[in-house]
Amino acid sequence: MTSERLTPSASEVPDPEDRTRLRIEEFRKRRPRLVDDVVTMAHGAGGKSSAALVDHVFVEAFRNPLLEELGDGALLRLPTGERLAFSTDSYVVQPLEFPGGSIAELAVNGTVNDLAVSGAVPQWISAAFVIEEGFPIDRLTQIARQMRVAADAAGVQVVTGDTKVVPHGAADGLYVTTAGVGVVPAGRELSMESVRPGDRVVVSGTIADHGMAVMLARGNLDIEADIASDSMPVNALVEGLLAAAPGTRWMRDATRGGLGTVCNELAQAVGLGVVIDEGLLPIDPTVLGCCDMLGIDPVHVANEGKFVAVVPAEETEAAVAALRSRAGGGQAAVIGEVLAEPAGIVAMRTPFGGTRIVDMLVGDPLPRIC
Amino acid sequence: MTSERLTPSASEVPDPEDRTRLRIEEFRKRRPRLVDDVVTMAHGAGGKSSAALVDHVFVEAFRNPLLEELGDGALLRLPTGERLAFSTDSYVVQPLEFPGGSIAELAVNGTVNDLAVSGAVPQWISAAFVIEEGFPIDRLTQIARQMRVAADAAGVQVVTGDTKVVPHGAADGLYVTTAGVGVVPAGRELSMESVRPGDRVVVSGTIADHGMAVMLARGNLDIEADIASDSMPVNALVEGLLAAAPGTRWMRDATRGGLGTVCNELAQAVGLGVVIDEGLLPIDPTVLGCCDMLGIDPVHVANEGKFVAVVPAEETEAAVAALRSRAGGGQAAVIGEVLAEPAGIVAMRTPFGGTRIVDMLVGDPLPRIC
Repeated sequence: MTSERLTPSASEVPDPEDRTRLRIEEFRKRRPRLVDDVVTMAHGAGGKSSAALVDHVFVEAFRNPLLEELGDGALLRLPTGERLAFSTDSYVVQPLEFPGGSIAELAVNGTVNDLAVSGAVPQWISAAFVIEEGFPIDRLTQIARQMRVAADAAGVQVVTGDTKVVPHGAADGLYVTTAGVGVVPAGRELSMESVRPGDRVVVSGTIADHGMAVMLARGNLDIEADIASDSMPVNALVEGLLAAAPGTRWMRDATRGGLGTVCNELAQAVGLGVVIDEGLLPIDPTVLGCCDMLGIDPVHVANEGKFVAVVPAEETEAAVAALRSRAGGGQAAVIGEVLAEPAGIVAMRTPFGGTRIVDMLVGDPLPRIC
Repeated sequence: MTSERLTPSASEVPDPEDRTRLRIEEFRKRRPRLVDDVVTMAHGAGGKSSAALVDHVFVEAFRNPLLEELGDGALLRLPTGERLAFSTDSYVVQPLEFPGGSIAELAVNGTVNDLAVSGAVPQWISAAFVIEEGFPIDRLTQIARQMRVAADAAGVQVVTGDTKVVPHGAADGLYVTTAGVGVVPAGRELSMESVRPGDRVVVSGTIADHGMAVMLARGNLDIEADIASDSMPVNALVEGLLAAAPGTRWMRDATRGGLGTVCNELAQAVGLGVVIDEGLLPIDPTVLGCCDMLGIDPVHVANEGKFVAVVPAEETEAAVAALRSRAGGGQAAVIGEVLAEPAGIVAMRTPFGGTRIVDMLVGDPLPRIC
């Protein structure tokens, strides 16, 4: 390229519409790239680096149509035509207990919620424990009992499991991995591909509670605030929503990476714009205050009992009313809409009339949140 | 009790049959008790301590009929009547690679085999990774590719997964947890309860290869021997066996705790005796030599590509022939039989005409073998 080329000729200056398109293309090029040689904490944070690792390492190796959906759970079709959802998550949260819950509730509710937002009725859970030598058996017993209580509350059974022990120093107390199987009722079809411009974005309640509760529970931030995790099973909320708004397009629970990452996954996958109204985001003032103090955007903070649903405009009112009438859904709200533009981008309308782009979570401001 | 009571009166001396019964009752009282305050490596070894931990902590908390079967996988029944097997295992093997395999093959084959011996056709696998910060991405990529190769060989797909990262020092490189779902063909019924006196015990090949291969791969035993893990999917062997011996009662893969622990689980659960002929055990001479040097009984050493099947006497010949005609089953053999007595006990007939009792694995001579 010669120096003359740096100054475009008159014919090369893009018109405004082209400029928008170029900007979007430029933004899309910023899709996760895997640039590291070793795994970093950011690869486990659920944001851009996690997406890059999963894409380049695991999807690349395991490639198959079911996996490539990259949903909260895989949708399996049995020879009889019956459909199942199948999902797994490991839990490495630190500390193991925090206001509002523990690794026990996370491990059950996390998998229950992945199945529920896949459209399935969660039914069976497996639980595999990697335990550090020296872990008190009393505490393990308590965690198992808490898992049972959580399973009962969600209407699922823990039906199989495994126990491994590693030497002192080879784990941080306890890691739990659950997997789950649920049955998808006949006729229920949820997919990112069915999302259309004009659809509304609904969130089932306040955001950022879980991440902030765990951060504060570590006790090293010199912040004292009364914040509890929102860990809960959302399957009853999901069923209520789907009964009231049967045209619901797609759902996802907003865990690691938060609401902002979920909306980006949607926008990038279907090439539509997701426009969120910041003033409509349900958020507890104490949680918001802590986020501000720590310089963390609440849309990137993990939730453990909240999900995002994309609902046709005409069913939005019924959807929100159904959520608000149920435990855990009292603060459900419409927070935005899906538009044709800006394609592949999540934009946030601020209360001051401006608009900013919401990226996926970058880095790992909140390590080991689940 | 007074000192006179130590010498029983003539009327109290039990007759031989009573003595047998008393001995069995005494033995049964030795069933796993949970005596520790903290988790020890033995709780993860798959033997008596593992059984105690699972029984007192997890079965106690999660109690439900599906879990209480304590099979290799839970058997789920869908509303349509279709039956599924569902299983999970965590893998914490050290080193991650060893002659004959790696954590990748173990993680896939282990879950495939749990489903297969449950009578299911394994179909879908989940994979959750807990990765230590600093783990090389090249190595992770290699492990994912090895998992894909193993999945293809077993005819299953990895359809969903999760990635968590923990700080340096909070894991030992990499832990992998897989779960799996398989479909149980109509009419197939396998259960411990169907085992009858007179049935034969068949093993699908040589024992103790995997455990010895991993022990030697650690390089701290000053033993050099050419031993490779037997890690392989057994689903094709299982299907071959079931086609040839449709009356097969029950199967289990002999992983942690080895053949001896599996036979004890059977004997104790159904109150029958399992009598093994030591001279019939297929075992590689090099593996046997290493076991002897280390003072470890090969019946307690883990396998990762072998299973035990209980087959009606009249189908035994066909069962063994079917196994021997397939890859990985060339050394299948009848190794013993199920008898009414000694109830609840595994006895080994030695080549010298004696009989010894084979207990479940006690302690943890082989830590982190899978």
